[in-house]
Amino acid sequence: MTHAELIEQLRWKKFPVLDDGFVCLVDVMGDDSAVVQAARVSYGTGTKKVSDDRTLIRYLLRHRHTTPFEMAELKFLVRVPMDCWRQWIRHRTANVNEYSTRYSVAIDSTQTTPPDEWRTQAEQNRQGSGLALPIEVGQKLSEDERHLQVLARQTYQRRLESGVAREQARKDLPLSTYTEAYWKIDLHNLLHFLALRMDSHAQQEIRDYSTTIGEQIVRPLFPIVWEAFADYRINSLSLTRLDQEVLQRLVSSKPSNSTPPFWSEADFLAVQNESWRSLQRCRERDECRDKLERLGLMAAESSDVL
Amino acid sequence: MTHAELIEQLRWKKFPVLDDGFVCLVDVMGDDSAVVQAARVSYGTGTKKVSDDRTLIRYLLRHRHTTPFEMAELKFLVRVPMDCWRQWIRHRTANVNEYSTRYSVAIDSTQTTPPDEWRTQAEQNRQGSGLALPIEVGQKLSEDERHLQVLARQTYQRRLESGVAREQARKDLPLSTYTEAYWKIDLHNLLHFLALRMDSHAQQEIRDYSTTIGEQIVRPLFPIVWEAFADYRINSLSLTRLDQEVLQRLVSSKPSNSTPPFWSEADFLAVQNESWRSLQRCRERDECRDKLERLGLMAAESSDVL
Amino acid sequence: MTHAELIEQLRWKKFPVLDDGFVCLVDVMGDDSAVVQAARVSYGTGTKKVSDDRTLIRYLLRHRHTTPFEMAELKFLVRVPMDCWRQWIRHRTANVNEYSTRYSVAIDSTQTTPPDEWRTQAEQNRQGSGLALPIEVGQKLSEDERHLQVLARQTYQRRLESGVAREQARKDLPLSTYTEAYWKIDLHNLLHFLALRMDSHAQQEIRDYSTTIGEQIVRPLFPIVWEAFADYRINSLSLTRLDQEVLQRLVSSKPSNSTPPFWSEADFLAVQNESWRSLQRCRERDECRDKLERLGLMAAESSDVL
Amino acid sequence: MTHAELIEQLRWKKFPVLDDGFVCLVDVMGDDSAVVQAARVSYGTGTKKVSDDRTLIRYLLRHRHTTPFEMAELKFLVRVPMDCWRQWIRHRTANVNEYSTRYSVAIDSTQTTPPDEWRTQAEQNRQGSGLALPIEVGQKLSEDERHLQVLARQTYQRRLESGVAREQARKDLPLSTYTEAYWKIDLHNLLHFLALRMDSHAQQEIRDYSTTIGEQIVRPLFPIVWEAFADYRINSLSLTRLDQEVLQRLVSSKPSNSTPPFWSEADFLAVQNESWRSLQRCRERDECRDKLERLGLMAAESSDVL
Repeated sequence: MTHAELIEQLRWKKFPVLDDGFVCLVDVMGDDSAVVQAARVSYGTGTKKVSDDRTLIRYLLRHRHTTPFEMAELKFLVRVPMDCWRQWIRHRTANVNEYSTRYSVAIDSTQTTPPDEWRTQAEQNRQGSGLALPIEVGQKLSEDERHLQVLARQTYQRRLESGVAREQARKDLPLSTYTEAYWKIDLHNLLHFLALRMDSHAQQEIRDYSTTIGEQIVRPLFPIVWEAFADYRINSLSLTRLDQEVLQRLVSSKPSNSTPPFWSEADFLAVQNESWRSLQRCRERDECRDKLERLGLMAAESSDVL
Repeated sequence: MTHAELIEQLRWKKFPVLDDGFVCLVDVMGDDSAVVQAARVSYGTGTKKVSDDRTLIRYLLRHRHTTPFEMAELKFLVRVPMDCWRQWIRHRTANVNEYSTRYSVAIDSTQTTPPDEWRTQAEQNRQGSGLALPIEVGQKLSEDERHLQVLARQTYQRRLESGVAREQARKDLPLSTYTEAYWKIDLHNLLHFLALRMDSHAQQEIRDYSTTIGEQIVRPLFPIVWEAFADYRINSLSLTRLDQEVLQRLVSSKPSNSTPPFWSEADFLAVQNESWRSLQRCRERDECRDKLERLGLMAAESSDVL
Repeated sequence: MTHAELIEQLRWKKFPVLDDGFVCLVDVMGDDSAVVQAARVSYGTGTKKVSDDRTLIRYLLRHRHTTPFEMAELKFLVRVPMDCWRQWIRHRTANVNEYSTRYSVAIDSTQTTPPDEWRTQAEQNRQGSGLALPIEVGQKLSEDERHLQVLARQTYQRRLESGVAREQARKDLPLSTYTEAYWKIDLHNLLHFLALRMDSHAQQEIRDYSTTIGEQIVRPLFPIVWEAFADYRINSLSLTRLDQEVLQRLVSSKPSNSTPPFWSEADFLAVQNESWRSLQRCRERDECRDKLERLGLMAAESSDVL
Repeated sequence: MTHAELIEQLRWKKFPVLDDGFVCLVDVMGDDSAVVQAARVSYGTGTKKVSDDRTLIRYLLRHRHTTPFEMAELKFLVRVPMDCWRQWIRHRTANVNEYSTRYSVAIDSTQTTPPDEWRTQAEQNRQGSGLALPIEVGQKLSEDERHLQVLARQTYQRRLESGVAREQARKDLPLSTYTEAYWKIDLHNLLHFLALRMDSHAQQEIRDYSTTIGEQIVRPLFPIVWEAFADYRINSLSLTRLDQEVLQRLVSSKPSNSTPPFWSEADFLAVQNESWRSLQRCRERDECRDKLERLGLMAAESSDVL
């Protein structure tokens, strides 16, 4: 399949998200080679000899030479609950045209929650959510949700019928009301958006949208860029100055264990940063331990640490 | 009063807007002379001779030399209904930190509408609103509004009490719910925001906010800039190529009247743009006529034209 | 010719500018209808009834509804003297990849001036230039120019041959040295760039580039937008509050002449703004007079007014 | 010393850079607590309990919650060679007013190079520079530099004396000519600029400027932010997916050495990424090896590794 055929296949194809949302590609300018084209003008003819396109793209992304990635552009049409859109619109580097509820009657659809999808507040993460609530609780919550959404719509309709201006009638629509927008952004800023919004700390709803955009649309259109993005951004691990020093002290110390993982929690605590030592709870220490565990330097604790 | 005293008097002073909103100045960098300072580096020492500060500022603004106005910066704390904030946040040139309803329980306040403030849909303007609805209608609408807002808050509270995560519990809050944000922007982009949002076509609610920011805060802090802004932006009149040609033909034609306004509706129609002539309704012709009337070249029609 | 054929015809076609520069279209996303598409989501289905595409585009541009114009995107390859590029790069809304003289040897070309193209300093305009200098003077200037450019290149070459790093060797290249860049920008910001840089106050060199971009590339690709841009931006005339008041007083006063132009310089001076009256030289008065003359309300002065 | 006193001490103090350049602080809005203030509105009152200001700032910077850092703003006056300014101006998030050589005669100063500061092209780094050239070579280069700069200035002066417009006369000024600019930027974007331009891969000249801004101005004004920036950005180490897998395999393999560093070059090559194995030269493998050496997992090679 040529790139042009791929684009034709993707354009206007609605990938469903949530109960009544979608994302679809409207247009795209450029592909992997557009990144290479722009980089070669910056880095000059010399680059032609030493690196093929894939190597060059990976080099650029690994070293955060970001401007060549701005040379591709994507335009989407999205249908999103306003609550989710409030997070989305915070990214200021995109071009946006949103459905106007001043000009037109609001879209008659709200995002609804099935009984088994109500989530508890996360324990460790002040902003996140955790496991599902029991189904009995969820059933009551979903009923209440429906009741509220119906009343909100009726109120909106009665206002319009009474002659209230659309711009004022909309004032009590629930945040779950769907909106639509054209959203256009360059590839660099799109990857930044995706890195933040596909992250495990992002809210589930916007993660669903960004994962769909990333996996279903960006990955096939820009396969080499996407692979580099996964290797160097999504799945990278950053060690702070303090982390590096702890790791250096750890691997310079005599291992407790004779088989991997060679070092223990006690070894870790022995070489921790001095400023952490007196603290009973220390988020930065927890983050450091988590990284060392992921790297296989020490055993994961049995107790669950986020 | 010195500029420093003026700032101290303004900082953190809450100017009320709507029923429970406000704007207040948090900090400001620069004054009228910051614009002059920056302009003088661009335009060089030569400018010192020929113009005093006021003349220079007025010249810059009149000729859209906008960069010196970016050299002053203002930071506000605002409390705004989310519905209004949705319009506000579309301006992408500001720095923003908004109250997070993922981290914290939503502010327990919604914008409510008194019975005499429900507005009809404008006839001529698809997006605007017109006169107030009759008070009897308004009373019923305000009752319904209260009923809906109370149910929405109860539903939100019950979700939190059931253990639903804040990020999910908020999903059906009405758009009338107040939010708060720090909002920081340079003077050039603030004036652009104010020009758009103080305009008669902007929604009443955001006009109230922008007018308060402009009149209560920007005007005293930047008196010379504000005067120029009023003279050259807010109160300017733009004549298109077509408008100019109509006006040129009109003032080259023999006046119908011997006293001002010298020309008549018939004179106007005689010299209108050819592309308008066959149209029964033509918005561009209406706009042109409106401008010529404002300029005193022809009499205002008795019938109401927007 | 279809739009796709037009694009294929334009892509990579090098339009020459100056003695060794060029602009060419690399890629484009969207056409006139992309503006309409985006506007219709904002303004809703209601717009479909009342206006065809051309009327809608003209309405949007006339009323500065700018966001739909951000939905088209253009990418160029340009070859420009660094002096000119210094002005170009001040527009911060574009994506840029410039030829790097750290990675590669500088392009071996400088912009040269023929003997008959040396321009005098403008009398009235502190930043502009005026008529050509006498050819005898120009011949000497062009010789000196060549001498300097040759020495600059020799010095650069000798540095490279001596082993100096490219990033340091380039430090004394003349500003006339050509550079190349990919330059990508949305249509709204491109029009803003063109409005500023096609203006009679812009330097001749960048006017040549922007006029070529506008007339040769944007006009055929976006014919309806371009027409509206010419009618409502390039050829518009802005009347300040003060201008309007002068015009109102003028057309309310008894004309001096019985044939057009009906009013005289004396009539104008009689109704001028009070703050201008005491000033012997007043740029704002000159600007106002110039506008009234262009509108045919009064005769152009015989003396030269910029 | 209070923060206000510190600002007064810093304002307009010219920190010299290069032979005739400088940076100085013109104005600043906010301090460390401005970041905290903005974060607390986002993250809500809940944050007050669990973290003091320093912990909060460090948390924000570590987790790239960048918006609160946009709430402080700094304005500088800088004097920089145009060559260096060409790199500087590529950062599009700042407000800029540069000295205009259209309005005024160009600053009569060029950056000159002493005989012992001519640098060779770097071997390993296509864009960088290496050691100093021999002094005898440098002396000749400095003489040539002076000769060229003198001729360039004479030519410029002769043009002005012949009546050539300033905007055209400047066309062959060397890139080493100093320019001046007001440069205003928020703290987040300033840190991003500093991270890129204080880096060892940046050109020496702009490193001198950015290091001066960072160390002399930002560090004292924002001590807590600066410390976090050093710990989490400047001195952080990023492990790609491939790096992590190599490290995981390495620390799961039997160490070759009984004392630190426990693993050898042979151990590393045994567990390298499969895609690297067949390559004689592989920049990504070199980067990985370098990181593992810095972390103390394996011995640094004797041969020179970039």
